[in-house]
Amino acid sequence: MLTMQDALARLTAYWTAQGCLTVQPMNTEVGAGTLNPATFLRVLGPEPWRVVYVEPSVRPDDSRYGENPNRLQTHTQLQVILKPDPGNPQELYLGSLAALGIDVAAHDVRFVEDNWASPALGAWGLGWEVWLDGLEITQFTYFQQAGGLNLDPVSVEITYGIERIIMALQDKQHFKEIAYAEGVSYGEVFGQSEYEMSRYYLDDADVAANRQLLEIYAAEAQRLIDAGLPVPAHTYVLKCSQAFNVLDARGAVSTADRAAEFGRMRRLAGEVAKLWLARRDDLGHPLGLVEPAAAATAPALVTAPAQVTAPAQAAERDGARLLVFEIGTEELPPAECRSARDFVEREIRTGLAATRLGHGEVRVFATPRRLVAVVGEVAAREDDHVRTVRGPKLAQAYTTDGVPTKALEGFVRGQGGTLDEVTEADFNGVRHAVLTRQEAGGAAAQVLAPLLAKVVGGLRGAKNMRWRDPQLSFSRPIRWLTALWGDDVVPVAVGTLAAGRETRVLRTAADPVQQIASAETFMETLALAGIVADPEDRRELIVTGAQDNVYPDGRIDVPGEDALITQITYLVEAPTPLLGTFDESYLSLPDAVLTTVMRKHQRYLPVRDADGALLPMFVAVANGPVDVELVRTGNEAVLRARYEDAAFFYRADRSTPLDEMRARLARLTFTDRLGSMADRAGRIAALATGLADDLGLGSATLDRAAALVKFDLGSQLVTEMTSLAGVMARDYALHAGEHRAVAQAVYEAELPRQTGDALPASLPGALLSLADRLDLVAGLAATVGLPTGSSDPFAVRRAVLGLLAVHRAHPALAALDLSAALAAAAVQQPVEVGDAVLPACDEFLAKRLEQQLVEEGFPVDRVRAVLPHHGRPSVAVSLLHQLGEVAGNPAFVAVTEAIQRSRRIVPRGTPASYDPAALKEPAEVALHEAVTAVRLSSEPDLLLFLDATSRLVTPITTFFEDVYVMADDPSVRSARLGLLATVGGLGANLLDWSALQT
Amino acid sequence: MLTMQDALARLTAYWTAQGCLTVQPMNTEVGAGTLNPATFLRVLGPEPWRVVYVEPSVRPDDSRYGENPNRLQTHTQLQVILKPDPGNPQELYLGSLAALGIDVAAHDVRFVEDNWASPALGAWGLGWEVWLDGLEITQFTYFQQAGGLNLDPVSVEITYGIERIIMALQDKQHFKEIAYAEGVSYGEVFGQSEYEMSRYYLDDADVAANRQLLEIYAAEAQRLIDAGLPVPAHTYVLKCSQAFNVLDARGAVSTADRAAEFGRMRRLAGEVAKLWLARRDDLGHPLGLVEPAAAATAPALVTAPAQVTAPAQAAERDGARLLVFEIGTEELPPAECRSARDFVEREIRTGLAATRLGHGEVRVFATPRRLVAVVGEVAAREDDHVRTVRGPKLAQAYTTDGVPTKALEGFVRGQGGTLDEVTEADFNGVRHAVLTRQEAGGAAAQVLAPLLAKVVGGLRGAKNMRWRDPQLSFSRPIRWLTALWGDDVVPVAVGTLAAGRETRVLRTAADPVQQIASAETFMETLALAGIVADPEDRRELIVTGAQDNVYPDGRIDVPGEDALITQITYLVEAPTPLLGTFDESYLSLPDAVLTTVMRKHQRYLPVRDADGALLPMFVAVANGPVDVELVRTGNEAVLRARYEDAAFFYRADRSTPLDEMRARLARLTFTDRLGSMADRAGRIAALATGLADDLGLGSATLDRAAALVKFDLGSQLVTEMTSLAGVMARDYALHAGEHRAVAQAVYEAELPRQTGDALPASLPGALLSLADRLDLVAGLAATVGLPTGSSDPFAVRRAVLGLLAVHRAHPALAALDLSAALAAAAVQQPVEVGDAVLPACDEFLAKRLEQQLVEEGFPVDRVRAVLPHHGRPSVAVSLLHQLGEVAGNPAFVAVTEAIQRSRRIVPRGTPASYDPAALKEPAEVALHEAVTAVRLSSEPDLLLFLDATSRLVTPITTFFEDVYVMADDPSVRSARLGLLATVGGLGANLLDWSALQT
Repeated sequence: MLTMQDALARLTAYWTAQGCLTVQPMNTEVGAGTLNPATFLRVLGPEPWRVVYVEPSVRPDDSRYGENPNRLQTHTQLQVILKPDPGNPQELYLGSLAALGIDVAAHDVRFVEDNWASPALGAWGLGWEVWLDGLEITQFTYFQQAGGLNLDPVSVEITYGIERIIMALQDKQHFKEIAYAEGVSYGEVFGQSEYEMSRYYLDDADVAANRQLLEIYAAEAQRLIDAGLPVPAHTYVLKCSQAFNVLDARGAVSTADRAAEFGRMRRLAGEVAKLWLARRDDLGHPLGLVEPAAAATAPALVTAPAQVTAPAQAAERDGARLLVFEIGTEELPPAECRSARDFVEREIRTGLAATRLGHGEVRVFATPRRLVAVVGEVAAREDDHVRTVRGPKLAQAYTTDGVPTKALEGFVRGQGGTLDEVTEADFNGVRHAVLTRQEAGGAAAQVLAPLLAKVVGGLRGAKNMRWRDPQLSFSRPIRWLTALWGDDVVPVAVGTLAAGRETRVLRTAADPVQQIASAETFMETLALAGIVADPEDRRELIVTGAQDNVYPDGRIDVPGEDALITQITYLVEAPTPLLGTFDESYLSLPDAVLTTVMRKHQRYLPVRDADGALLPMFVAVANGPVDVELVRTGNEAVLRARYEDAAFFYRADRSTPLDEMRARLARLTFTDRLGSMADRAGRIAALATGLADDLGLGSATLDRAAALVKFDLGSQLVTEMTSLAGVMARDYALHAGEHRAVAQAVYEAELPRQTGDALPASLPGALLSLADRLDLVAGLAATVGLPTGSSDPFAVRRAVLGLLAVHRAHPALAALDLSAALAAAAVQQPVEVGDAVLPACDEFLAKRLEQQLVEEGFPVDRVRAVLPHHGRPSVAVSLLHQLGEVAGNPAFVAVTEAIQRSRRIVPRGTPASYDPAALKEPAEVALHEAVTAVRLSSEPDLLLFLDATSRLVTPITTFFEDVYVMADDPSVRSARLGLLATVGGLGANLLDWSALQT
Repeated sequence: MLTMQDALARLTAYWTAQGCLTVQPMNTEVGAGTLNPATFLRVLGPEPWRVVYVEPSVRPDDSRYGENPNRLQTHTQLQVILKPDPGNPQELYLGSLAALGIDVAAHDVRFVEDNWASPALGAWGLGWEVWLDGLEITQFTYFQQAGGLNLDPVSVEITYGIERIIMALQDKQHFKEIAYAEGVSYGEVFGQSEYEMSRYYLDDADVAANRQLLEIYAAEAQRLIDAGLPVPAHTYVLKCSQAFNVLDARGAVSTADRAAEFGRMRRLAGEVAKLWLARRDDLGHPLGLVEPAAAATAPALVTAPAQVTAPAQAAERDGARLLVFEIGTEELPPAECRSARDFVEREIRTGLAATRLGHGEVRVFATPRRLVAVVGEVAAREDDHVRTVRGPKLAQAYTTDGVPTKALEGFVRGQGGTLDEVTEADFNGVRHAVLTRQEAGGAAAQVLAPLLAKVVGGLRGAKNMRWRDPQLSFSRPIRWLTALWGDDVVPVAVGTLAAGRETRVLRTAADPVQQIASAETFMETLALAGIVADPEDRRELIVTGAQDNVYPDGRIDVPGEDALITQITYLVEAPTPLLGTFDESYLSLPDAVLTTVMRKHQRYLPVRDADGALLPMFVAVANGPVDVELVRTGNEAVLRARYEDAAFFYRADRSTPLDEMRARLARLTFTDRLGSMADRAGRIAALATGLADDLGLGSATLDRAAALVKFDLGSQLVTEMTSLAGVMARDYALHAGEHRAVAQAVYEAELPRQTGDALPASLPGALLSLADRLDLVAGLAATVGLPTGSSDPFAVRRAVLGLLAVHRAHPALAALDLSAALAAAAVQQPVEVGDAVLPACDEFLAKRLEQQLVEEGFPVDRVRAVLPHHGRPSVAVSLLHQLGEVAGNPAFVAVTEAIQRSRRIVPRGTPASYDPAALKEPAEVALHEAVTAVRLSSEPDLLLFLDATSRLVTPITTFFEDVYVMADDPSVRSARLGLLATVGGLGANLLDWSALQT
């Protein structure tokens, strides 16, 4: 059995053989190998650097007294830095697994999108988690920034999680069981330390002392920066980080503290990085400079040079061949892969359209490692072409005598023509002298090469990275290009890449690089290597393969798992679905727990019986012709470990009284100024019950649910899997014997969790949900401010959308005015809510509603007309619907026009009252009588309003026809204006009539 | 070329193959691998532990900005712990060197005594520095105590200094040139960090911040101890240590601070150690328990059992054989080796004397690895023997009737005799019944086995250690016993050791273990293996070999290097003297520098020309048949590095103005309460010139020398080699153009540096020397107290001896009273000197003088008689000499007796005055006249005194014969007593007459 210490030695030896230096771990506590100066400082600047080292990584927050099988306050990382990117780091990495004795062809080794960022270091990179049979064993990152500085060259960072790898290789269930060395277990060597350091970090570290340390360290770091000494300054930044982590583990860091400390560390780290660069510069770069990557040159054309003078001949079409263009990448994230496919298709279509190259169907396929464009029947050459070249205007081309001018002669000479050839043509109605030139079309390869190069150069992802190419930047590195037109290589060259006739199949294939004879055999070559290039085919294979695996007892809920299946489709290129099982006992865990782990953490498909109940099995989809038994076993072990963790927490939670969990909220900080989660839950409860009382909707169910709201944030399972908040609350509440309605309301308080999520069905749930969001919005608006731009760390925008959605879903709450409710929430905040805050919230709410309704397809004018009801969105919506109904109704149009017209005429501020005695004209008297007879409902109901006002239509029309409002007699004029103001004021509480377009 | 990282990997692999765990360096700064919990905690308690790890060791004080070729603020240790002692750790260690590619047979690998102690950790052990061709490459220690706790089992600690080993193997002159990895130098990787961390430690670390850190760390350590968590507590003890070291490097630690901080760290470390033990106990010792070492059983006797009844026969003497008894050890310290040899000889002689075993000459030899006793002609058996066994007293043996009593019968039965055999004998004059028993002597092996076992068990050094033997304890481990009487093994068994016929020769021999056929061939076997057992022979070989090597130009000053040669004699057992040379340019360094390095650091013999001038060469004495060329080169490189260091400092010092060096003394703390070295030098100067003025001995030379005194403590060379203080002062002063007399006086101020050292020759030098010591004694007596017992950290005792020696050497200073001078020194101290201090100093001084004079052979009574002059020791001594001269002189005897007799008669307090008129008797009148006529010199000169008083002899004699002193008439009596008091008071300022024995 490979012991842990042997594994470290083997990996070190392997990377040393790849030219890495070996250095020692940092001699101050660090949370990760990245913090060691051998990474953090060395990735900066132009010097080459290859290093491997072991780094015991201290994560105070992961302290578990050594009890959790998979989590340690100090775990062992093995860190590799390759600077610059060697071009084949994934292959080198697979070699290291082989050095550990792992048969990478038999196992399912996968590169699963993972973008790394360390805000405290001003550092980020793109890359992957590497999965071994579903187990995350390595973090693989192309480092893009450190200390806020762009890295050039880019470094490849490979971080192995040694304990997890060894547990998998040794088939151990608990880290303590690892054979650390011959005959000595990990627990025997490190168990006591794990326990005691956990005690320190979780229970015993002195908060005041660590606060002091943090300040001293930060001051010393700053002093050393000022003294121009980046190396010791860096060690003090690391010490800051550790002190901060200790405070955090002790629960002594509020959200605001965190932001401030991260800001300080980021600033210090940034200054350290700048200083380091300057010092290395002063020292003349002792390790030398990275050679810039050489730009590729395209191979010479293999086709014969085009005969410029040869006429286009239809016969040449016979030479049309298939074009295949493959862009080989490292594993693209699923979403990026899909959008890149679309981009390639669009670019090739428009690119070809801009040429005169005949071609057939354009199809583009995508897998995580390749984008493949296949274009049928691409002609050997462009069609020939007659081009008309515009010369001088006729008036300037010839003298009045018809003699060619100097200008014309110059033009003709410039075009290599003769005066004989000059003809005339119209350009925008002006006659010009012209020459027509016969132009031969370009050969296919010649035409395609720049077109395809442009496609590659134009690839961009949502987040882009550099590797070691002077020109390219994409979601992940582009490593090769294959471009064949028939038998010929299309000489595409871009950045460091030149296209050829080689493609790469699975890395674990016997022959991972394959020569392609002609475009026509390309897809076959991929297929023979097991690669299914077409996503539709892959999806089909995954779905049917999964179904076959679970047949006859189980079934996959294909529509229900659509998003997951799509994701899986883009995670593999040679899908190998396989069935795994887990112990039935885990089925006692809530479905949400089981499926969250499967979907979110493992990308496994859940399996259900005919009634939709979960079965103790799952489908994992491996990539390539793996050893199914081996991979199954590995995946089962991973799932078991995760379920064991969850079950452990679940049992612990279920044996904890609800009140005790609720009490734990006092230890969770919401934000620095807004108190603990317990404070927040208290505010939610008070607000929800208060609003209910106002509406006469109070109930025992609501009261109890309010007392419990958010209690599951104090549970262990939700601490681990925050997405289960609410779901676990319901489960634990039912288990604790609460009424079903109470449990449901506590669950519903968390709804909706994201756009499109379920909404509270019950009134108590809806009230709690609203109160939750009202409290969040009011509190944060008062302290942090409302979100602007894309930054919205506290998800205030989502909370506001939730308010709208819940209100709209509950007509029973139509009377609840969110603006008023926000004011009520504001009163409860532990901070003063400034005068401007509530109006800002109101406006924010109105804007969101407007945007939402417009996006739902309601005409903008109508949306604006109902927007005064933004505080009661369900009212606004029902009015919108009524507007739709009455839109074509002549009476409504007339009433609307009358109101609008009245408003236009009446000066602002005119009272809606008048002396009827002053009215003499029959039309005005008739209108007066009609208006006086109108009896309006107080309900916001447009149909009732129309009923009540439709009889005004005739008198109004007559009035406007017969009466001149601005009479000379002031008393008459005043009475007429007062009458119109009365008309214009009709339905003022219903709509903003002026916004309506009739 | 073996790179540094490969060397680390090879050593790690080697020790892993020996069953060591590999762990990581400590993730907080440590000064040495010993501090890592993998050593400090794991050596405690009964669990086995084998570990190897790399430890970057931070020594802020060694910061040199990366400029010094051999000194770094962070150097790399590779640390190995073997617990328990495997029995052959040295052999395992040599294997590790071989794993590095070092041919240990060709090189000179030596284990040179080095006792390790860390007061701050309450830890110590005995062991060696390992030298490779004169270069210290490893520290090898048997760990005896940690945290103040005795270690059982004992751990072997092996600490490699990697940079030094690699520099030697790669033949590099500067650590920055080390090939760290293929194509990358150490300087390229670590140079910047070395510079910047040096800057931090020497210049930029904030003292106040680090003081705060020290306090916070200590408090946190204490809290964690109180919480019962030794592991995190230990990390905080380490952080304390680092913070302390930073402060120390910044020059911010006084002697008293140091003592207090060491005390605190020792206490914390001790509590951590106790807690760790308790916790491991609670945990049930997860790593198991070390098996106790099995006690040896002696082999069965090979000789035939003694025939108890066989009569002793002279003929058996023919069977006498040689006895050889070898106690094989690991390398003993030279001094221990010599005293152990003496012990073995004494024990064997007295042991044999207590037997009846005939034997010839007893000789005992010693080398670092063996104590060999060779006893000629040891008889095969003890002589037979008639033993008289005492029975009851005759009176109780028989009834009055002569019938044997029960008592007699019982006695006879008990002795297995018969009543017939009973005879009688006297015991202390009482007649007893007796039996005589014929007893056969024991066989040689039988007699020798317990005797020799007792010798082994009785071995003790000045400092003793345990390894893994339940019974034995010695300077270094005893590893084997060889005991042969002729062909037979003497069955000695003690502890885990049983004697056999195997000996061990050089570890690097082709066959390091050899079988010995018979005692007679033993010495030959050793000799054939190159081992010279007899120290006299070795010494001779070393001396003549060295002389031969340097012939004809050079010579070794054999008498002058006696102590060194003796040391070398006990450092090797197969001496191979070899000549090395060094660059002539180094001869420009002062001789003292060159020879101090050679003798003290390297144990090389200096080589001189016929005039005694140093030649650029040295003799090193290797052990065994090494590759001379290789070893020479190695030793030359070591010396070159050391001289290069010295030359660097020397040049720097010589270009520094004296005043600047003097000014640096302000940065050196003398003691916490007594100020800086500058303060002290100022006090010395003031005191010396003040005393000189009092004596009329002031001079410009003294004034200038006083202004410079101790300035060289501010030089770099003396900072590195403190034993050169004074010597360098003279050199630098001369170079700076000071008068020769000034330079000499500054040098002499430091004399004598130890017992037997040269004394100041000039008066200015003597005055400064005295002032130096007076200041030291007064200051420390006032603050720390005078030394008691053997503890004397500030060498106050040596200072007092210096005072005596210098005073005695300078008759011109006879008038200077040291007691008064101490009082003058006390006045200058920056602290209050309590009332009791000066009397105590005075008494301390007197005691030392008394002891010294007695040891010099002066009779105790005379010494006591002159002791009132302890303040002027030269006076005391001259009086002693005069006492010797006059001792037999009847006049002196008479005068003495007269004085003594007078003093005895006269009651204490009687005034030495009287009314001459009251004296009537002729004898008293005569005495009165004689006494009145005496004219005494004020000089402390006994001969003058005798001259002046000898004419009193007759009148005194007559007086005592004729006069009854205690007359009835009170006035007469009073006058007579007054007269006698006057006589008794003669010479009271010369001697304590009552102490003299006449």
